[in-house]
Amino acid sequence: MSYLDTINSPKDIKNLKINELKELAKEIRNAILNRNSTIGGHVGPNLGIVETTMALHYVFDSPKDKIIYDVSHQCYPHKILTGRKDGFITEEGMSKISGYTNPQESEHDHFVVGHTSTSISLACGMAKARDVKGENHNVIAIIGDGSLSGGEALEGLSNAAVLNSNIIIIINDNEMSIAENQGGIYTNLRLLRETNGRAECNMFKALGFEYYYVADGNNIEDMIDILQQLKDINKPVIVHVRTQKGKGYKFAEDNKEKWHWNFPFNIENGEPKYVMNGENYNDITFNFLANKIAEDDKVVVVNAGTPGAVGLTPERRVILGKNFVDVGIAEEHAVAFSSALAKGGAKPVYMVLSSFVQRTYDQLSQDLAINKNPAVILVFWGGISGADVTHLCSFDIPLISNIPNIVYLAPTTKEEYLAMLNWGIEQNENPVVIRVPSAVFHSKEGVEKDYSKLNQYKLMKKGSEIAILALGSFYSLGMQVSDKLKEKGIDATLINPRYITGIDEDMLNQLKENHKIVITLEDGELNGGFGEKIARFYGADDIKVLNFGAIKEFTDRVPLKELYKKYHLTVEQIVEDIEKIR
Amino acid sequence: MSYLDTINSPKDIKNLKINELKELAKEIRNAILNRNSTIGGHVGPNLGIVETTMALHYVFDSPKDKIIYDVSHQCYPHKILTGRKDGFITEEGMSKISGYTNPQESEHDHFVVGHTSTSISLACGMAKARDVKGENHNVIAIIGDGSLSGGEALEGLSNAAVLNSNIIIIINDNEMSIAENQGGIYTNLRLLRETNGRAECNMFKALGFEYYYVADGNNIEDMIDILQQLKDINKPVIVHVRTQKGKGYKFAEDNKEKWHWNFPFNIENGEPKYVMNGENYNDITFNFLANKIAEDDKVVVVNAGTPGAVGLTPERRVILGKNFVDVGIAEEHAVAFSSALAKGGAKPVYMVLSSFVQRTYDQLSQDLAINKNPAVILVFWGGISGADVTHLCSFDIPLISNIPNIVYLAPTTKEEYLAMLNWGIEQNENPVVIRVPSAVFHSKEGVEKDYSKLNQYKLMKKGSEIAILALGSFYSLGMQVSDKLKEKGIDATLINPRYITGIDEDMLNQLKENHKIVITLEDGELNGGFGEKIARFYGADDIKVLNFGAIKEFTDRVPLKELYKKYHLTVEQIVEDIEKIR
Repeated sequence: MSYLDTINSPKDIKNLKINELKELAKEIRNAILNRNSTIGGHVGPNLGIVETTMALHYVFDSPKDKIIYDVSHQCYPHKILTGRKDGFITEEGMSKISGYTNPQESEHDHFVVGHTSTSISLACGMAKARDVKGENHNVIAIIGDGSLSGGEALEGLSNAAVLNSNIIIIINDNEMSIAENQGGIYTNLRLLRETNGRAECNMFKALGFEYYYVADGNNIEDMIDILQQLKDINKPVIVHVRTQKGKGYKFAEDNKEKWHWNFPFNIENGEPKYVMNGENYNDITFNFLANKIAEDDKVVVVNAGTPGAVGLTPERRVILGKNFVDVGIAEEHAVAFSSALAKGGAKPVYMVLSSFVQRTYDQLSQDLAINKNPAVILVFWGGISGADVTHLCSFDIPLISNIPNIVYLAPTTKEEYLAMLNWGIEQNENPVVIRVPSAVFHSKEGVEKDYSKLNQYKLMKKGSEIAILALGSFYSLGMQVSDKLKEKGIDATLINPRYITGIDEDMLNQLKENHKIVITLEDGELNGGFGEKIARFYGADDIKVLNFGAIKEFTDRVPLKELYKKYHLTVEQIVEDIEKIR
Repeated sequence: MSYLDTINSPKDIKNLKINELKELAKEIRNAILNRNSTIGGHVGPNLGIVETTMALHYVFDSPKDKIIYDVSHQCYPHKILTGRKDGFITEEGMSKISGYTNPQESEHDHFVVGHTSTSISLACGMAKARDVKGENHNVIAIIGDGSLSGGEALEGLSNAAVLNSNIIIIINDNEMSIAENQGGIYTNLRLLRETNGRAECNMFKALGFEYYYVADGNNIEDMIDILQQLKDINKPVIVHVRTQKGKGYKFAEDNKEKWHWNFPFNIENGEPKYVMNGENYNDITFNFLANKIAEDDKVVVVNAGTPGAVGLTPERRVILGKNFVDVGIAEEHAVAFSSALAKGGAKPVYMVLSSFVQRTYDQLSQDLAINKNPAVILVFWGGISGADVTHLCSFDIPLISNIPNIVYLAPTTKEEYLAMLNWGIEQNENPVVIRVPSAVFHSKEGVEKDYSKLNQYKLMKKGSEIAILALGSFYSLGMQVSDKLKEKGIDATLINPRYITGIDEDMLNQLKENHKIVITLEDGELNGGFGEKIARFYGADDIKVLNFGAIKEFTDRVPLKELYKKYHLTVEQIVEDIEKIR
């Protein structure tokens, strides 16, 4: 019988003795490793926060007291203690429990969270709601893993400081972001660690917080002590807690960046269970940029705190040297910074995931597009996916493509991608965003080098009756649809639009001559997307338009195959839909 | 002959003596007042920054040295000193020179800027570009008026601190934001002012900056001294400068918030030249919310640093009391905060301008929409306008309406607006955003109280052949088109869609029975907007669709009438376009 067996809600740990809690901590670590080694997930952050989480639930009374996790990298121990341990023990349980906080899973979670830097703002709102309702409970935000450098967190911090009421912000300082810490904020955290929290030069005190330092946040007694002291405090406080990322698992302790998030692995040796082979756009992009920088010192690669996700490993960052800037989790800054790099005569290439580019709409519009600075942005992972609801990547086309002056390109092959990237870097006219495909295809024929004549679609196969506009990563789907139609005796026209941000009026007008139906295929949300612009263009014509893409909805870990079927994105469904209106 | 007569470029002030500079400062103030009293503009910020600007151009060599203004509230003296004084003297000049920095106006401007909090990030990019190119010059950011609390500024600050190279950030501290200062950052600025810059608890030093304090930034000798000392410095420095907002103009000194930005006024008595009468949505909204709060203490009005723009005067803020929260310029926080207020059981109403809601896409999506918290957001000023390019308000429909779970409503009358607002506050199902109309119309008949059956359009007049879907503030245009068509013997159907975020499939299908043409009218960008969804819906049908709205483009102070004509938004043009396809 393990201690974990006895834990079904937070109240079950309140009666454990310290040595029992320490045993439980080991069991929790094993459970975390069990889940992550089986289905993948955040390893290091969760191993580091075990004791802090136990102390929180030991001292506070969740869900009356509100515990709000930032970005949810660190929520596994919390899930284990709040009735969801099965998600860490059995495979069936794992499939039911997500890797992020979610109120639908438990009353101990208050928000669905998967983007960084939100916990302090959310805690402020919960605290203010408590105050206007005349209630009494603690509101606790837990933030770490580099989230503190995000604008939303800093806005929240400044506001939390003047809340004049109970709010307890736990800074989980494991000396790391997802990769290394970046920025002046971490300069100060380091100073505070080095002075055991005593340095006068303290950004939190400067903002007006009461400040407490815990030198070993993996010591559960110390954590319980400080939290008992602060429970029910009537003012905003910071608890700066030093923890060890990856604590208790040697591989994760030794290589903190690699073990931030992992695919399934063998616990014994830390080796991944599955090896991925073949070409991928991370390698392709790095190799191209490294060569480019060797030729031209003005090329600067920019990333905002997630270099690993786009293939910029520590070794590769060393190779890029001073021509690589990781600004930390600060996506807004990354866009403005890139715009100004371009204005100043450098050649920036900002690499970002589709889900996180959402942070930057106003910077794309104001700092970049209005100024028409020729920065390049590479959007990775764009497309319909089976991801967690907080990491969907199907919204970047509506987000980016409706901003004037931006040229948003959708390459279909490796060769086209590299040609577009090279052109984007060398041109001086427009901000260029490129939607990096997922699977790697190759062009059979040569690709254009120059994309400066905007909005010229490429006619890949000339046919009649039906025209297929197959955008970017859905170009291969377009080819399949074309093949299937051929089987039915229809010689369809196939077009690679290339430009997401504009209409090739000449080509679309020519299609009217001998086409009755135009279909669009896009790997993303239909609302506000590419296909609707085609539908508008043909609105007053006799030509019929069918748009294929994702419905406007948030989906949560729905398998891609299921989504494709739901959205009528299989070859068979598309052909059926076409036949219905022929 | 004035000193100003002799100033045609920055080098012309370099030979002036101190007493001559002081005379010139007076002339610059008169020029600022001359412009603002004639055509309106930012008064207080520009009057306060005169000496700092003169010292910058006295010490540094623009455009070699790069001077980058935040939000451009404070760029008038810079414009006057850089060859654009005519924009402050003659009416013809005023129409040519904008109120914001613009590289097309002058080589001394580096960015088109009109949103806050961008200068530090932009300066970082310029500095990094300088460094990779091996150049030597100074990069100077000037930030004030509350911009420092914006996430982008704080991200930039953290990154500037570790730049390890020349960057000079001037914090223009006039003890004000647009309204009062809000947040812990300003707690620290106050402490630093009170200690003459000597307090150890200094957020800038904590981040790693060298820090300098100037107690009287309106003393030109002091400003010249400090800048000469810092010119060509090889590290990031902060110059915290205390200035007086409105300096030299009594009315502006006495009422700093009122005189931040003004419509044309009489210089002698400070009275506005034109008085606006009649109903407006600022008053309507305040009156409703004040009554609502009197009934229900859980209603909380939220604003992010621009209360005056939405009619929340200081007097009204006092009336709202603890049920009003100005979070300062921190739009992202405002959305997350509102989401959490709703989660916590309060009833938040966040009031924001269309142009500034652009800052919050990710918070709308992640913090709010994924969580389905029933916060209410009121978007003011949404629509096509003759505004400066940085303050256009025609993008909010593409921005907001393609996010799942959000209910974006477009009321057409005061009665409908208040019914929707009341419903939004009382319901518990969805985040509700309301696009506040501009002109006030009244409903002749009653309006529904309950909008929980989503996406039900309202049939206002049943006709045939042509159906007009006239959204929100363009409903009156729809009525005019309907009347004009009647003159031509066509009895058109007129529909108030009410819901921007969804399709009324039943009604749209019914229209197929006896309509050949459906037109949509929307007061905003067509790309990604409302009408395209209608075009997609009818894509495979015989019905023809014409979408009317704005082209995807940035316009800069183009008169509304001209834009309407360009976009085919006059009644005559719309009817002509319809007749062309009948």
